[in-house]
Amino acid sequence: MTAFTRRNLLSVAAGAATAIAVPPDRPVRAATPPAGKQTAGWYRYKIGSIEVTVATDGVARFKMAEDHVINIKKDVVNAALAEVFMEKDMMTTPYNPIAVNTGSKLAVIDTGTSETNYKKSNGVGGQFVSNLAAAGIDRAAVDTVIISHYHGDHINGLLMDDASLTYPNAEILVPAPEHKYWMDDGEMSRATSGRGQTNFKNVRRVFNAEVLKRVKTYEWGKEVIPGVTAQATPGHTPGHTSYVIASGSDAVYVQSDVTHVPFLFVRHPDWHAFYDQDGAMAEATRRKVYDMLVADKMRVQGFHYPFPSLAHVEKYGTGYREIPVIWNPTI
Amino acid sequence: MTAFTRRNLLSVAAGAATAIAVPPDRPVRAATPPAGKQTAGWYRYKIGSIEVTVATDGVARFKMAEDHVINIKKDVVNAALAEVFMEKDMMTTPYNPIAVNTGSKLAVIDTGTSETNYKKSNGVGGQFVSNLAAAGIDRAAVDTVIISHYHGDHINGLLMDDASLTYPNAEILVPAPEHKYWMDDGEMSRATSGRGQTNFKNVRRVFNAEVLKRVKTYEWGKEVIPGVTAQATPGHTPGHTSYVIASGSDAVYVQSDVTHVPFLFVRHPDWHAFYDQDGAMAEATRRKVYDMLVADKMRVQGFHYPFPSLAHVEKYGTGYREIPVIWNPTI
Repeated sequence: MTAFTRRNLLSVAAGAATAIAVPPDRPVRAATPPAGKQTAGWYRYKIGSIEVTVATDGVARFKMAEDHVINIKKDVVNAALAEVFMEKDMMTTPYNPIAVNTGSKLAVIDTGTSETNYKKSNGVGGQFVSNLAAAGIDRAAVDTVIISHYHGDHINGLLMDDASLTYPNAEILVPAPEHKYWMDDGEMSRATSGRGQTNFKNVRRVFNAEVLKRVKTYEWGKEVIPGVTAQATPGHTPGHTSYVIASGSDAVYVQSDVTHVPFLFVRHPDWHAFYDQDGAMAEATRRKVYDMLVADKMRVQGFHYPFPSLAHVEKYGTGYREIPVIWNPTI
Repeated sequence: MTAFTRRNLLSVAAGAATAIAVPPDRPVRAATPPAGKQTAGWYRYKIGSIEVTVATDGVARFKMAEDHVINIKKDVVNAALAEVFMEKDMMTTPYNPIAVNTGSKLAVIDTGTSETNYKKSNGVGGQFVSNLAAAGIDRAAVDTVIISHYHGDHINGLLMDDASLTYPNAEILVPAPEHKYWMDDGEMSRATSGRGQTNFKNVRRVFNAEVLKRVKTYEWGKEVIPGVTAQATPGHTPGHTSYVIASGSDAVYVQSDVTHVPFLFVRHPDWHAFYDQDGAMAEATRRKVYDMLVADKMRVQGFHYPFPSLAHVEKYGTGYREIPVIWNPTI
């Protein structure tokens, strides 16, 4: 056996013409063209009698700003990216909202980046509605939309490209403290950073008259639909909310943005991303939630986890690490 | 915020009736029935100009025999299972063959557990052909079947339930040393263990006259179809073969059964499963391949890795650990 090096492995391929071991002697068939098409990104699992469908909205890739992680130097962030074989300076962000069928309610939790983004990005983002449809879930059949917080990747999908309702037959359940904060003109006027103003303006655009007609607020600690209980996880935004989905003896923690991408912020809960509005509070929430997940061996469904975004969590160094649940090809 | 414990989280759900925060006041809609159906298990990616389609054959779950890992005590194996949140004594085995479209050839590498197993298992296993079809690949369009080794989960899918050819228009490329070994009556007579005899009998069943008519042998180190080069990785079986798929500046290592499930045998390359025919040689091969994967930061496509089975590899303790590549919802 020759030495196992990439150079040796590839040198064989380079000398292709003479190395063909099996020359074809059957009639030459027309080559099958490459399919060029990815599978629809959805995945289903049960929690007791509740059916969860993860439908990806896509993955964004973009150059990280110098202060993407505001309390950590860029080269430390780049080292963490290298550890998981990701390109330096580049952020890779999956968006994975879910649908929850409780038997009596068909809800979506968060809405993704919108049909507008689907068009703008040529289908790289904004796939949530089409992937739901591929999973057999018609947006018109959704009776409840549950919103975790008011950042664009969670709310923009409330509207189609023509600003009509994506879920025309659904009521829209929103966290009371989150709604209060973003609808407060005083808070808006005090939002100093450009990002703050941008987010406020986006919230006011999305929560138009038609959307506001459907909105009902819910309180932390309450069951918003049967089996889905709102958890107070403030910090990322003032009213940021997570959920426990529980049925029978089983339960999963839907973390929303308690952490952003796990390969950076689960491993390093002390890193404060610029989109954590109150970094210290977000970190405290993160540690509380993750300590609980570890202690209770509870699975987490993470909006920014790689699809299908369902994982266990273990302690790791000064932080935690996700262990993806094995893909189950049956339900 | 109350303490984050599972007991507290669930106690809210238990008091459901009084905790509903948002009583419905809209007309009651008919509940949408649960879909009860998993997505078709396929995933596609490119290596240069070559298109790879992973199509899962399913996942088997079974109680491990006392000597499943012949040189390691059961409680140590159970501890490793607990580390990845898996049930003790239970083996969970994904089967993930692939299709490779080089532009001139449409090949499958290994064939899964067969249509017969699909029927016997009620569709839990034997999904390869139906998942290929869902991915737009008709079994009749496959022009090349490449076999890594002669264990049942890799060859049984050569035949449909009525023993006709699954890939009627394909030639079947097999490793010369593997074919020689399993077709040798002397080797068969010397196979002492029940498992050995069972495997020989299965090989003779699958390699019937129709299959043998299509068989051509290939040698290690040779390109079997353009861009796919056979790698000598003996030990698991005498002629066990892996592949490098290379195109442009990109390459992926298709490891076949260099390791079985990564959560046991990538982390512990010194563990000898009963299906490693020569445990010591399998371990030596394993370490050589994985040291190369680590040194070259090369991705591995693993037949028994969880779907979609594409990962990077890092050193970890005395072994290695897989880092799944992030699901890409576009191609």
